[in-house]
Amino acid sequence: MTVKSTEDSLYLDIEKTAIKISIGAGRILSKHFGEIQTVDYKGSGKNDPVSIADREAQDYLKENITTIFPAHGILGEEDEDINLEPCLAPDYVWIIDPLDGTKNFVAGLPIFACSVGVLYRGTPIVGAISLPWPEKESGIIIHARKNNGAFIDGVVLPKLKASKVDEASLATLPGSLRSLLKSYDSHENQPLGDVRVTGSIAYELALVAKGVTQYAITTGPKIWDVAAGIILVTEAGGIVMKGRTDNRMHMFFRRPRWETLESLVPDWDQGETTMGDLRAWGETLISGHESSVTHIICNVGINQRKGRFLLHFLGK
Amino acid sequence: MTVKSTEDSLYLDIEKTAIKISIGAGRILSKHFGEIQTVDYKGSGKNDPVSIADREAQDYLKENITTIFPAHGILGEEDEDINLEPCLAPDYVWIIDPLDGTKNFVAGLPIFACSVGVLYRGTPIVGAISLPWPEKESGIIIHARKNNGAFIDGVVLPKLKASKVDEASLATLPGSLRSLLKSYDSHENQPLGDVRVTGSIAYELALVAKGVTQYAITTGPKIWDVAAGIILVTEAGGIVMKGRTDNRMHMFFRRPRWETLESLVPDWDQGETTMGDLRAWGETLISGHESSVTHIICNVGINQRKGRFLLHFLGK
Repeated sequence: MTVKSTEDSLYLDIEKTAIKISIGAGRILSKHFGEIQTVDYKGSGKNDPVSIADREAQDYLKENITTIFPAHGILGEEDEDINLEPCLAPDYVWIIDPLDGTKNFVAGLPIFACSVGVLYRGTPIVGAISLPWPEKESGIIIHARKNNGAFIDGVVLPKLKASKVDEASLATLPGSLRSLLKSYDSHENQPLGDVRVTGSIAYELALVAKGVTQYAITTGPKIWDVAAGIILVTEAGGIVMKGRTDNRMHMFFRRPRWETLESLVPDWDQGETTMGDLRAWGETLISGHESSVTHIICNVGINQRKGRFLLHFLGK
Repeated sequence: MTVKSTEDSLYLDIEKTAIKISIGAGRILSKHFGEIQTVDYKGSGKNDPVSIADREAQDYLKENITTIFPAHGILGEEDEDINLEPCLAPDYVWIIDPLDGTKNFVAGLPIFACSVGVLYRGTPIVGAISLPWPEKESGIIIHARKNNGAFIDGVVLPKLKASKVDEASLATLPGSLRSLLKSYDSHENQPLGDVRVTGSIAYELALVAKGVTQYAITTGPKIWDVAAGIILVTEAGGIVMKGRTDNRMHMFFRRPRWETLESLVPDWDQGETTMGDLRAWGETLISGHESSVTHIICNVGINQRKGRFLLHFLGK
């Protein structure tokens, strides 16, 4: 019992810190939103911008985490000390995306998120996502810790309910995926819901937890896009499933190849997971209430005639 | 000179009223956003919801317009007195969409708009669009009147600038259209920009005027979706083009069939335009800076092999 209580107390402390620093990072983003941003691009092309807001929010998050939990690991999207990554990951790792949706942020579209997730031995245990929101000066925080439910600004969120995927319901998909999906049953047009494309995966997972959208499909996200969102969705009463094969294209074919996501690192106990392994993580996920997720994975698949576009889309 | 001044003064009064009532309607929407909404559906299916917020905002708008400009016509999305529609339209008609993006609003996604546009003999002369916005209690108002520039909350918006359509730039399209577009030149993959799907046409046109997105394509909008947005975009320095044929599918084929939109009712002078004609209006539009619009209409078209999906999409 003592051990359990200590763990509960630690998780609570971690959640409190995650909420506090998400609020602080939200303020930083809010301060910079609407300013003209100088932008650098990571990698080739212009697909991965970094602004001063990303860097300032990440520095703020890391400073606070290091001060409060000096033994915990931190993995951030904007990390520059990647020479540490061959090191074994500690049991507790904070996975942070200071600004998910930088392209929207820089353009002036208020669809972005700050995502703070915490893993214990590869499994998400705490998450806090800050979203810009009408009338809210520093945005809203959707947060959760394991086995304790999901909350918005400290108020418990209602559990997700079973509902029918139809034209009245919203869902989010990557834009390139949408037209490739078709129903397995050629006699019936299975609805996908009314699809939105937002450009921020963390924002989309928070929308699922909040009950705004019925499900979200994210193809090939990075760990910092989803570490917080996964625990928000599951604590809100939803499920998260991952593709069960290395060939992402197969996941949408007739025979579903999905399994419930239990951990981001199922082989953690082998003791060989490095920070670099966490950085390299990438799985296609579908998140939502079980009824919506089941509807999609059982009834909707890739139009095989168009499948080659998906391969292109997935960079294969 | 006197006549000109009188017209200027009238247009200014109209703009002031449009701004004032957009703020008021924005407050009504803001009050209801986040509440659990009772929703009715217009027509068959669940594609066209109406909430209490739509009705309350429309009543507010109509009451104010009728009081201040009793001789002007009013056409609203939620109008019920459509038996007036065989009547000839007066010279000044207010075209209002109290809540564009009802499905988002009802689900709790803060992407929606209140759109107030005014036509003089079929041509947009004043527009005001209210958008929910972070940190702003009643949202922001993008507004414009003919030959006077576009403004945000009274502050002039910078004129749109020529820029390259590439992966760094945002654009909005109907979700179903996206995958059907391909470059005419099969050797080169013409970029569309990074596409977002928002579910609110008025919101998208305001984003173009504000310089957030480079262009917006709207296939078959209703007049209340675009009456305000058209004048915002043109006064911000952009252009709006419409399809030049009745067959919407042809517009994206090799030979561009687009022309600059001058008026929503080019044959107004024949004196036969009714309120019902305005309600029945529908043209496919592309809006943005001339450089982006030209890039898209000259380089990007419908993949003909996939064209039948477009026909389905357009309900033909």
